[in-house]
Amino acid sequence: MTVKMKRSLGTMPLLYPEPTLLVATYDANDKPNFMTVAWGGICALEPPSLMIAIRPSRWTHEALLTRKAFTINVPSEKLVTETDFGGIVSGRKFDKFATCGFTAVQAEKVDAPYIAECPVILECSLIKEFIHGTSKIIIGEIKDVKADEDCFDDTGKFPDIEKILPIIFDYGTRNYYSVGKKIAKAWNVGKPLAKKE
Amino acid sequence: MTVKMKRSLGTMPLLYPEPTLLVATYDANDKPNFMTVAWGGICALEPPSLMIAIRPSRWTHEALLTRKAFTINVPSEKLVTETDFGGIVSGRKFDKFATCGFTAVQAEKVDAPYIAECPVILECSLIKEFIHGTSKIIIGEIKDVKADEDCFDDTGKFPDIEKILPIIFDYGTRNYYSVGKKIAKAWNVGKPLAKKE
Repeated sequence: MTVKMKRSLGTMPLLYPEPTLLVATYDANDKPNFMTVAWGGICALEPPSLMIAIRPSRWTHEALLTRKAFTINVPSEKLVTETDFGGIVSGRKFDKFATCGFTAVQAEKVDAPYIAECPVILECSLIKEFIHGTSKIIIGEIKDVKADEDCFDDTGKFPDIEKILPIIFDYGTRNYYSVGKKIAKAWNVGKPLAKKE
Repeated sequence: MTVKMKRSLGTMPLLYPEPTLLVATYDANDKPNFMTVAWGGICALEPPSLMIAIRPSRWTHEALLTRKAFTINVPSEKLVTETDFGGIVSGRKFDKFATCGFTAVQAEKVDAPYIAECPVILECSLIKEFIHGTSKIIIGEIKDVKADEDCFDDTGKFPDIEKILPIIFDYGTRNYYSVGKKIAKAWNVGKPLAKKE
């Protein structure tokens, strides 16, 4: 392998790949709302948990703290326009569900709506929150995962990412990307190296 | 848009897309080591920060707490075998850098090595850590981001994700995927919806 010259970009929140997720809540007026985030990910096996980071000035912030519940909605690339819109405007001024033609469904396990048009939903209850710099870090326990029936793989056990078609966010160049081809089997392709020693 | 039937998968740490990242540290014997994680992401603009979640039983855990420093190395899909290997075995038993033929370079800003063969590096100092369920959550301040000179886009300002070729991890079906095609411009494609109201 060749060692290439590297150039410093200084300090910035740049990472590859980043997800593109929709966080849905009921606001103070019981109105379903959602916001788009790239800062989020799984953070524990037990309790099954995920972390999101948002600015406390966001409309969703108050809703999260009041209802202690939210859903993570994984948008398909077919919803990239609606997804981008959700990150441009605030629920203070816009009825984002109405503008996007999204269907708000009451989650089964938590006090939050989910977006029916998204292929994968994680119902979460807020179990920890704290300020870190300019962010409020929110940790949610995943109370249920649901996926569209037509998104499952051939085994029927898990969703097929090629049917979900989630969106990758590139913060640097400000672009959205799709998921590409399958490269390799995980916990498998590296096994020959483990036999070397 | 059609509202489709959804099937519950119960509680599990399933999210799309997830990243595939290599966390590099010096261990107790000053030996460079790395581990592969999918649980991590940016969590603040100021200070520029990222979060990773690892099990406290991991060899990297002690190194993180002792050195208070680590690098996040973004592997290209060409390194998928080495990346997978890094998640299969422990640095307690393996010299992972040697097995992979990786070049350990001393980071400029923190007391950790980085993997020269990875196209993007984030040098991080540990600024917060706490137990959450089965995980130790680690928050690092990003002290420098560097990228291979030949990975920049036409403007020369940011890396081009299509040159980095980061790896997407699918926890459900246990597969790695590549990044696909550009779908849309962020903070742009959704603008027409913002003019509706």
